[in-house]
Amino acid sequence: MFTPMFTHLAHVSIAVPDLDAAIGTLKARYGLAAGEVMENPQQQVRMTYIELANARIELMAPTGPDSPIAAFLARNPRGGIHHFSLGTEDVGTTAAGLKAGGVQVLGDPSTQRNVHGDPIAFIHPKEFLGALVEMEPAAGGTHE
Amino acid sequence: MFTPMFTHLAHVSIAVPDLDAAIGTLKARYGLAAGEVMENPQQQVRMTYIELANARIELMAPTGPDSPIAAFLARNPRGGIHHFSLGTEDVGTTAAGLKAGGVQVLGDPSTQRNVHGDPIAFIHPKEFLGALVEMEPAAGGTHE
Repeated sequence: MFTPMFTHLAHVSIAVPDLDAAIGTLKARYGLAAGEVMENPQQQVRMTYIELANARIELMAPTGPDSPIAAFLARNPRGGIHHFSLGTEDVGTTAAGLKAGGVQVLGDPSTQRNVHGDPIAFIHPKEFLGALVEMEPAAGGTHE
Repeated sequence: MFTPMFTHLAHVSIAVPDLDAAIGTLKARYGLAAGEVMENPQQQVRMTYIELANARIELMAPTGPDSPIAAFLARNPRGGIHHFSLGTEDVGTTAAGLKAGGVQVLGDPSTQRNVHGDPIAFIHPKEFLGALVEMEPAAGGTHE
């Protein structure tokens, strides 16, 4: 049986309705400073990271009604924890191995990219205790 | 204004209806090995941690209908991401400072304890973009 090697907890991601307001709230209330605001047209999100010592908090807002996070925000209008991301040595190998074992993987890492251009894929929540889990490269653009 | 110092992302926590089944699923499907199963009578949960290189995945199941996570599981029967936890130098000081600034903090860290006996408190989701955020000691029992 294929066993993925998850290296670390890369980030926890919060979906928000208004990215600029969210950045302002976390800075004013907690002193948490967000980095550059970036856009991922493929995922239809505007997003940014807050760097902690060992991992990141990702904030993302939809850029349109077809964004993958628009439905989540319809259910959770003020925002909420959307997913977390685990590093893995090779996302393509891991996704293929999981699929071969019958685990539903969302997205094709040969084409799906995070904002850094790294291949990513998601494990369907029904396969991981109700949690949506992103997989990203262990040594990807998020860890330069 | 008081500015808390959050040191790191300590864990992401998944609430599950059946802890033993959850542990078995993550081991069989992903090779993720849980540690000791512990009980926190105060929080009314049975729980365990999966250790990653830089942080932990917490799994917790209610021990009774009055558990703080029972309502979450009623809304999310298969389980889901419940909260994440940030390390802070001193939970009592941070909680008091946030409260003084008008931020709603759940629980009193002078009496509320995690399974290691460390003081903890929670930031209400309405204060953190819809995310429930635990605060735990930067150098608490979870990092021995």
